[in-house]
Amino acid sequence: MTNSFKLTRVGITGVKKPVNIQRPGRVVTLTINMDAFVDLPSTQKGSHMSRNVEVINEVVDKSVRKPVASLEALCADICRSLLKRHEYATYSEVKMKGDYFLEKKTSSGRRSLEGYKLIAKATARRNGISVKKMIGVEVIGMVTCPCAMETIRANLMSKYPIYKECLKEIPVITHNQRNVSTLLIEVPEKYEIEADDLIQIVEESISSPTYEILKRGDEADVVYKAHLNPKFVEDVVRDILAKILKKYADLPNEVIVTVRSESEESIHKHNAFAERVTTLGELRK
Amino acid sequence: MTNSFKLTRVGITGVKKPVNIQRPGRVVTLTINMDAFVDLPSTQKGSHMSRNVEVINEVVDKSVRKPVASLEALCADICRSLLKRHEYATYSEVKMKGDYFLEKKTSSGRRSLEGYKLIAKATARRNGISVKKMIGVEVIGMVTCPCAMETIRANLMSKYPIYKECLKEIPVITHNQRNVSTLLIEVPEKYEIEADDLIQIVEESISSPTYEILKRGDEADVVYKAHLNPKFVEDVVRDILAKILKKYADLPNEVIVTVRSESEESIHKHNAFAERVTTLGELRK
Amino acid sequence: MTNSFKLTRVGITGVKKPVNIQRPGRVVTLTINMDAFVDLPSTQKGSHMSRNVEVINEVVDKSVRKPVASLEALCADICRSLLKRHEYATYSEVKMKGDYFLEKKTSSGRRSLEGYKLIAKATARRNGISVKKMIGVEVIGMVTCPCAMETIRANLMSKYPIYKECLKEIPVITHNQRNVSTLLIEVPEKYEIEADDLIQIVEESISSPTYEILKRGDEADVVYKAHLNPKFVEDVVRDILAKILKKYADLPNEVIVTVRSESEESIHKHNAFAERVTTLGELRK
Amino acid sequence: MTNSFKLTRVGITGVKKPVNIQRPGRVVTLTINMDAFVDLPSTQKGSHMSRNVEVINEVVDKSVRKPVASLEALCADICRSLLKRHEYATYSEVKMKGDYFLEKKTSSGRRSLEGYKLIAKATARRNGISVKKMIGVEVIGMVTCPCAMETIRANLMSKYPIYKECLKEIPVITHNQRNVSTLLIEVPEKYEIEADDLIQIVEESISSPTYEILKRGDEADVVYKAHLNPKFVEDVVRDILAKILKKYADLPNEVIVTVRSESEESIHKHNAFAERVTTLGELRK
Repeated sequence: MTNSFKLTRVGITGVKKPVNIQRPGRVVTLTINMDAFVDLPSTQKGSHMSRNVEVINEVVDKSVRKPVASLEALCADICRSLLKRHEYATYSEVKMKGDYFLEKKTSSGRRSLEGYKLIAKATARRNGISVKKMIGVEVIGMVTCPCAMETIRANLMSKYPIYKECLKEIPVITHNQRNVSTLLIEVPEKYEIEADDLIQIVEESISSPTYEILKRGDEADVVYKAHLNPKFVEDVVRDILAKILKKYADLPNEVIVTVRSESEESIHKHNAFAERVTTLGELRK
Repeated sequence: MTNSFKLTRVGITGVKKPVNIQRPGRVVTLTINMDAFVDLPSTQKGSHMSRNVEVINEVVDKSVRKPVASLEALCADICRSLLKRHEYATYSEVKMKGDYFLEKKTSSGRRSLEGYKLIAKATARRNGISVKKMIGVEVIGMVTCPCAMETIRANLMSKYPIYKECLKEIPVITHNQRNVSTLLIEVPEKYEIEADDLIQIVEESISSPTYEILKRGDEADVVYKAHLNPKFVEDVVRDILAKILKKYADLPNEVIVTVRSESEESIHKHNAFAERVTTLGELRK
Repeated sequence: MTNSFKLTRVGITGVKKPVNIQRPGRVVTLTINMDAFVDLPSTQKGSHMSRNVEVINEVVDKSVRKPVASLEALCADICRSLLKRHEYATYSEVKMKGDYFLEKKTSSGRRSLEGYKLIAKATARRNGISVKKMIGVEVIGMVTCPCAMETIRANLMSKYPIYKECLKEIPVITHNQRNVSTLLIEVPEKYEIEADDLIQIVEESISSPTYEILKRGDEADVVYKAHLNPKFVEDVVRDILAKILKKYADLPNEVIVTVRSESEESIHKHNAFAERVTTLGELRK
Repeated sequence: MTNSFKLTRVGITGVKKPVNIQRPGRVVTLTINMDAFVDLPSTQKGSHMSRNVEVINEVVDKSVRKPVASLEALCADICRSLLKRHEYATYSEVKMKGDYFLEKKTSSGRRSLEGYKLIAKATARRNGISVKKMIGVEVIGMVTCPCAMETIRANLMSKYPIYKECLKEIPVITHNQRNVSTLLIEVPEKYEIEADDLIQIVEESISSPTYEILKRGDEADVVYKAHLNPKFVEDVVRDILAKILKKYADLPNEVIVTVRSESEESIHKHNAFAERVTTLGELRK
């Protein structure tokens, strides 16, 4: 056969499915967008892609009768089935992403249903080593810039020396903006990581979480809290990393972690971005 | 023939072309995304869509040798040619959008090349009435919220009564965010509207323009200026409308105007939006 | 007050919510993306946008306990509540869009869960006239080009005169492609329109529906059927219009209909597009 | 300092700039979307992101006076300057993407200006090792499915045994679709790779290139050619790999190559995907 190179990933992208998933105390239906791949040896002309959809359907169908424990477990199940069904493949990979909702409370106690993205991924190798799973969240929040705050505080103090005491004590104006932060973490065999905890870690690492409904008092509280807590995207990533180390002290060193924070800067037309891709072991050094 | 209904718009979407266009004092090459349609009578089975691309190509090719005066003139040219080439059509419509750059200056005099979107549209009818043209701009800028500022000022005054004088005088913290505002205006026969003026009108109607490069001092100035000038999206739209009335006092009453402002709220996961679609005549009442 | 123009639409965009909706024989949870607007008189400085989210939340919360009858009924409910809550407004508008799934059968009887988009819209005016509702669907399908098929048949006949009989009888090669068709129809007071019927109308008007899973035999059937049934985007729109007239013969003349079909042409980098915006009365002439 | 982890990438995303670039025989202006990052040591609180924009502006400004030789050279220049300007950084990375146009000819000799995407990337390390550069292209084309063609040929032969000779000789119907293929290749020091050659390699590896303008004869030729040349996405990737090996026989073994092909399947709502990420050395084994 000519041009018989092996291929790294062959499969389908953009498959949408409703999935029933068990969350703490309830079952939710998520609309999931998924990709599923296997590798292809040089000796095989084409991958039987319809098998990917068959596998997805069987696993998702089962979820209607018995909700899956987690999105990453669903990815892992599909990965295992892909290796069974594609007898020529040595590797399989599944990625999923979907809108997810959690009830949160504003400072005044008002309930607000907030939207997030759940992300999950699994890869499997035929060589007997267990499947690798990752779970992740994408969280929209708010960050305020520490740098502009300090420059403006200094400017104001020099312009209004008589207000020095006030300007030392109150939070000073700065630019703030919508921020999207992503946290992905490997879930080793026999461990469980709760996506809701990841959302909490991210929301505690930005200047302030955001809310769908904010009446005047709540709105002032969010803005005030965010200005007491100014953060660069660099700070957001580092604070998430620190919280992960603390929360998952029992996870092994090999666990892979990816943390990303991107701010839709209000003072620029471009975004600010920070990222760390690493292992828990590296972070613990 | 069965099912022989007339159709409102038939054509092609997503055609990309580089276009040479005359701007004040220079020629620029823009990468334009365009759509081109004609109507289709009930007696005609299909529209000859390849003619749309032929017409676009001829007009765009000419622009290489002789830069077009404006994007809306280019749309109008294509509209006229579409009616000539589609002898069965009574209506033609062309829309264009592309990235456009202008050199701006920050408060300290630093030059910064800023990106905008140019939008143009033309429609033509065979019945002898002249072609209608619209030119528009999409501008990314910054808005600061007046409402949260007032609530927080009151909260701070009641928490720190001794700082009352300071809190009255200095701008107080509030949420601010990236804002996208759009202004579209009809260009009647024998009138000319300069897109750069539309960009200026929008940038003077938001809390502050934004810049690619801001060193510390410039950054503080942008933030400070924006907080002296808090704006709801409603205010942005109204201020643009007022500036249009003043700037284009000589334009006739029938001229159609669309103004839209959308803020990527830093305190919410959703956007705030305001819009007015009207005529100059309505605004002048 | 300066710049006190009235505004056409003020509100929020991009609000995501899970919604429980009653479908024939079952309740489904859809993740809906929604926009909600009211108008704003010149005498009112700002719209109370948090009320929009409050209204949405109340109506959506109710849907958890009692699934809504339809997405357009949900839009209409929110429209009515918006006018109650924004006492200064004379107009309200709500738009929704979400992924929706239906079980379909391939030619061999294989069950396949297919994805669609549900679209709904409602507008209300304070002057006592009833709320206007629209329901719609966006359907991904397949179209084959009749024009290239005819040219190629003629070319083949002239190249292979001895195969004339065969070439007359069998379907001949042509380009085919992914097509996205949209059908929106007004639902007058006291009438009901089932979104599943709209999906069926669209799928019967394209060259062939598409399926997630196609084993070899099914795949051949889909391709064969599509080539027996070549369609321009113009034909797709006209056939949908004809089927609407037949199916909804009892709907009044004022009912507004929008039909749109866009093909991601396999032979071009741009798309082909056809549209009709009209009323049932116009179509019946 | 608390939470003082090092960060992998810190910088800006979504910066748009017009860039003058030297192409064979002409200078073209491309509108480029770019990202620029450096790493950040644990000892440094924040990255000076405005320096990234300064560096970009200086290098891009120079391109106005003296067009850059290639997009990847521009990336490499910015990478080097980033390391100079961020004295604490040990790594820099720049990515660019923009619309690019080439004049092509249809089978009848008709000239057609076709759109592509140019992609470039560079990374630099402070340790004295030379900068790594990659150039790439994204090409929209057409693929026809070999599998459905064979099934349908067999079906037709069994249905029409008298037409066996014809069915053996003429291309038989199958599904075809828009395909997006991407080829990225490392450009080692002292070598040059021409993006136009990469576009040619991709266009020769799909079933057929696509064209903006196709009159009837040309359209039939494109469809016919594509059906003589059916390809799975797997075949597209493998054929590109083979052509790269042949064309770049003098490039060293360490050169990294990424090839990807994605088809917007006309018979499915999801896409088919194949990818190989490798080195020339691996391919040569």
